[in-house]
Amino acid sequence: MILLGLDPGLGTTGWGLIVADGNRLAHVANGQIKTDAELPLPTRLMALDMALTDLILEHRPDGAAVEEVFVNVNPQSTLKLGQARGVILLAAARSGMVVGEYAARLVKKSVVGVGNASKDQVHAMVARLLPGAKIAGADAADALAVAITHAHHLASARRIPTR
Amino acid sequence: MILLGLDPGLGTTGWGLIVADGNRLAHVANGQIKTDAELPLPTRLMALDMALTDLILEHRPDGAAVEEVFVNVNPQSTLKLGQARGVILLAAARSGMVVGEYAARLVKKSVVGVGNASKDQVHAMVARLLPGAKIAGADAADALAVAITHAHHLASARRIPTR
Repeated sequence: MILLGLDPGLGTTGWGLIVADGNRLAHVANGQIKTDAELPLPTRLMALDMALTDLILEHRPDGAAVEEVFVNVNPQSTLKLGQARGVILLAAARSGMVVGEYAARLVKKSVVGVGNASKDQVHAMVARLLPGAKIAGADAADALAVAITHAHHLASARRIPTR
Repeated sequence: MILLGLDPGLGTTGWGLIVADGNRLAHVANGQIKTDAELPLPTRLMALDMALTDLILEHRPDGAAVEEVFVNVNPQSTLKLGQARGVILLAAARSGMVVGEYAARLVKKSVVGVGNASKDQVHAMVARLLPGAKIAGADAADALAVAITHAHHLASARRIPTR
């Protein structure tokens, strides 16, 4: 089962693909989609949509997951993030994938073991769980962490079928 | 020239189509796209995208405009609005349209003559400017007001080519 994790952002969206076979995980690919801040917003959203659609067509993931949004204290940042997130959820849904959403605390707990882990701890643990992965940056590490969380969640859902 | 005005929202998106020939305007169609609050967010965004894409394919507008967002005091509302707005801007941009953005004050000033006009005043004035239009609701009226503002802006931009 190929799973796509996403860490949405208008400027940078992290993505990470893993193969999950129960609790056994392997890295497939990861990266960061950047959009040019000097372009108009609709053009940036279109660039994000195209990059993501290409990615989905190339790797044909079976499922996707994003982090639940930490709502920023800055409303303009929240709006920007929301616009990017809308495009990302749409791209995943259009491809027929069910999209999981996980709170940031749950992602950290799932990957590192504690809900208040630092970004560096997440990055280091993702690198350990997916040996051989060259991680493109902090947003790509977060995206892989979301994919790992999704894999754990699906594996435990299978173990407890009455859930 | 056919212009599409949009008033974005996750629950209800208003839309309005007019024909503009300089300052002469005529109503084409208007309506409100609603999404079911009980469905998952990605499914709602996909429903919004499909309805909007159908609309654009049917009427082939030459340009589109949306209101600049009034950032809500409630961050969760801002996030929801942002997600819907991202999908709407994407649908317009994907169709090759340049998307104009106008502040709410400017829309009110352009349609009613004062920047602090009430929703009822906007609705009444839109009905007067577009005789014969059956307006589907407050969000459709706002969308038509945005389309009218866009038409005025394009007409004055043509009059002052050095702008």
